[in-house]
Amino acid sequence: MRWEPGARERLQAAALELFATRGFEQTTAAEIAQSVGLTERTFFRHFSDKREVLFHGQQEFLQAFIDGVHAAPPDASPLEVVACALHAAASFFPDERRPYSRMRQSVIDKNPALQERELHKFAGLAVAVAEALRARGTGEPAATLAAESGATVFGIAFAQWIRDGEERSLSDIASQVLRELVNLSAAATGWRTAGE
Amino acid sequence: MRWEPGARERLQAAALELFATRGFEQTTAAEIAQSVGLTERTFFRHFSDKREVLFHGQQEFLQAFIDGVHAAPPDASPLEVVACALHAAASFFPDERRPYSRMRQSVIDKNPALQERELHKFAGLAVAVAEALRARGTGEPAATLAAESGATVFGIAFAQWIRDGEERSLSDIASQVLRELVNLSAAATGWRTAGE
Repeated sequence: MRWEPGARERLQAAALELFATRGFEQTTAAEIAQSVGLTERTFFRHFSDKREVLFHGQQEFLQAFIDGVHAAPPDASPLEVVACALHAAASFFPDERRPYSRMRQSVIDKNPALQERELHKFAGLAVAVAEALRARGTGEPAATLAAESGATVFGIAFAQWIRDGEERSLSDIASQVLRELVNLSAAATGWRTAGE
Repeated sequence: MRWEPGARERLQAAALELFATRGFEQTTAAEIAQSVGLTERTFFRHFSDKREVLFHGQQEFLQAFIDGVHAAPPDASPLEVVACALHAAASFFPDERRPYSRMRQSVIDKNPALQERELHKFAGLAVAVAEALRARGTGEPAATLAAESGATVFGIAFAQWIRDGEERSLSDIASQVLRELVNLSAAATGWRTAGE
């Protein structure tokens, strides 16, 4: 069994190309491997199934987000902590990754089962971030509110980042979306007192 | 075919009882019907399958939320609109429904497929509320941020409402959770300017 240099990356690029042109359902692991001159066996040494190709790195992304929570200054408020986490998570998506991310999203948009998996990813992200916030001493419901807001902001920012013609970095977009959330809340102060 | 007065409600109560004691998987539509002296055929006149028993009324709930968006004053800010919508949606869950909701949640918590369906329900809610906000003239990302915040606040408030010993109304809890979100944002103002 010989080591294939860069096999994982080649498989990933080939898979995405095939998913995008032929369709996710219509592409097999064997075809992905063949298209870059590798065996099906090599494919399965790197990925447990073809769906994994699209969700590979998910754990590292989650960890980057959580590391961002831990790295925030001790006196940061929950949303400030989330801002740090968003910044850390955004560094996972440098601009050169944008074309790949765009293509990946177009594959996911066409497949309900993959969308389901994405939805779960975000739900899992919010749960993990809320737990990290509680570990810092944030109470409930603040921890869950801040964590869910972080997941929402990331989702909106990411969708914008991969839009045609968008050139700002994911980190910049995320900052702006989070700022918009803060502004929305500021505009609800009237209700806040009226409701007392 | 005779009309069974209150058949739907009796089936619903019987189903929940069986799901909670025996387990969702282990209960059939025929058993639910039999336990209240009705036929399987009657069951299927009211529900397309046993899962439907748990999600019946979902459309009306969504509509209540959306109606709340439409009913908000024209000059309300997006989060103020969401506050109106939360209030309208909460009226769907009067306190006498709390024991039923508790039991339903305990059934859902034990079944991953049902949890998935719940997750979808909330995702669908946020999408519909964002659309209703855009129809009022709210731009993006404000509409999606406010809608997702509304779904998050509802989820947190609902989980609290069905907690053992909780006696506040769902509407009161939702108001407090939303206020907490506004407070979280106010506490992030330092970051907001620091980030410019």
